[in-house]
Amino acid sequence: MTHGVNNPVTIVGLNARGAALARALAVHTRVTVWDGAGHRSEAPHIEGVSRAGSAAEAFTASPLAVLCGDDYDHVHRVLETAEPHVSSVDVVNLTSGTGDQAEQVAAWLGARGVDYLDGALMAHPEHVGDPDTVLVLSGSRPVFDRHAAVLARLGSPTYLGSDPGAAALYDVAMLNFAWSTLLGFLETAALLGTAGVSATSVSPLLTRWLSGTVAEVITGYASQVDDRRYPGDQDWLELDAPLMDHLVEAARARGIDTALPELIRSLTAKGIEAGHGRASFASLVEVLRV
Amino acid sequence: MTHGVNNPVTIVGLNARGAALARALAVHTRVTVWDGAGHRSEAPHIEGVSRAGSAAEAFTASPLAVLCGDDYDHVHRVLETAEPHVSSVDVVNLTSGTGDQAEQVAAWLGARGVDYLDGALMAHPEHVGDPDTVLVLSGSRPVFDRHAAVLARLGSPTYLGSDPGAAALYDVAMLNFAWSTLLGFLETAALLGTAGVSATSVSPLLTRWLSGTVAEVITGYASQVDDRRYPGDQDWLELDAPLMDHLVEAARARGIDTALPELIRSLTAKGIEAGHGRASFASLVEVLRV
Repeated sequence: MTHGVNNPVTIVGLNARGAALARALAVHTRVTVWDGAGHRSEAPHIEGVSRAGSAAEAFTASPLAVLCGDDYDHVHRVLETAEPHVSSVDVVNLTSGTGDQAEQVAAWLGARGVDYLDGALMAHPEHVGDPDTVLVLSGSRPVFDRHAAVLARLGSPTYLGSDPGAAALYDVAMLNFAWSTLLGFLETAALLGTAGVSATSVSPLLTRWLSGTVAEVITGYASQVDDRRYPGDQDWLELDAPLMDHLVEAARARGIDTALPELIRSLTAKGIEAGHGRASFASLVEVLRV
Repeated sequence: MTHGVNNPVTIVGLNARGAALARALAVHTRVTVWDGAGHRSEAPHIEGVSRAGSAAEAFTASPLAVLCGDDYDHVHRVLETAEPHVSSVDVVNLTSGTGDQAEQVAAWLGARGVDYLDGALMAHPEHVGDPDTVLVLSGSRPVFDRHAAVLARLGSPTYLGSDPGAAALYDVAMLNFAWSTLLGFLETAALLGTAGVSATSVSPLLTRWLSGTVAEVITGYASQVDDRRYPGDQDWLELDAPLMDHLVEAARARGIDTALPELIRSLTAKGIEAGHGRASFASLVEVLRV
């Protein structure tokens, strides 16, 4: 059976994100909420939802339970309490965690006959429900299909396959990309700050460069990574290495933490040692696979 | 005196980039080239240029000498040989190096009455001369003004101020930003590769994310860095820390090098220790200033 957007939904976990999920759905359908943590001092106010008084009430109120725990301990506590009542519900779990944690929950629920879909909603609470908010899901395809209309109210849902750990991996992999870029920006801003260049004066140039040149380079590197061939037509590791020395030296001389530049340099040295001296920077993906 | 684009120019240093400089200018003006390294086995062919046979010839042929050494040892050898002939020439140095190295050359030439402009041309040789190639310069403003027309044939020149080390710092700071972003991409691609996700399938999503969300975040962080206030309205370090644990764990479990995720995590832990737990990720700029 496919459930329309008007089918009731239970949200478990009343942290900021769980509350945002409940708010995004309550305008369309009957929403039941239950915290299940038992330690939250004050529950957030959410217009137009029913509050379940027990696990039984929460898990029998709707054909779909969306878990949004503080962490996986929270999820496990919820599921153990709810065990007698889970069999007639589909479970979507948006709790942030690792792929292994998602797989454990999938196995636990699978043993009880429950279809499980794991997801990662890559947004701050206030962007929950925006049509371009990235929502990646993996695990049970039937759950994805049955609740497609509800999921589409939370963001832009993409199904990544039947491995319940894939969505969590995707989540941390995307975060890694954002953090690396942002840390690079902060290091660059700190370096230029030592010469009196303000971050706001340089950020327009950097973001333009990101959208243009850097994005182009990434697109080219993606093909190289997939082909496992890294032609260094324009730049190659041995050409980069002395510039990395200058970078480390500049950071040290100006009292800026050198860990990031040193990491870039040491991975490049490893790449050269491994025979990629005349290959592009993308060849470092080979030394990252340990 | 301001020199037009048709005034002669001498290029010193016939590596790939020096040859590209000579080619870009030779279509507009009389160009004299001199290698000055004395160790290059074969000089590149460059249409329509005069080859100087000596330092004297090279440094007296034109009112402007553009140095493009292999490194600063090369530059110092050139200048020592050319010492008796440098007094009547303006010097622009595009050799890649550190700010300190640029300042030493500026001091050496300054003691001999020569105006010095240091520059960084942020392009592979084949993009030398493109109107959107970034060319940053610092040091003598009179040299920048006198030779503006020639410099504009090499790229898009921007004057960064009178500190001769600023251009070199800018160069390595920009490279740091590119390398951090690209290394982040390679780590992300390696992680997703373990789940059979190809780099080319994910790169369009990542580059779209860079141009949109990440660029917006950078713009916001730039203001925070300049204000030294890091309001964590939507994300804050204590909220990020457990996700960083998941990232490190995922990388370790899947056999991907953990150095980059561990660096992100350890800087964040330092930030929390320093009292920035409820501040945004941009507050890490404070722990980068050692």
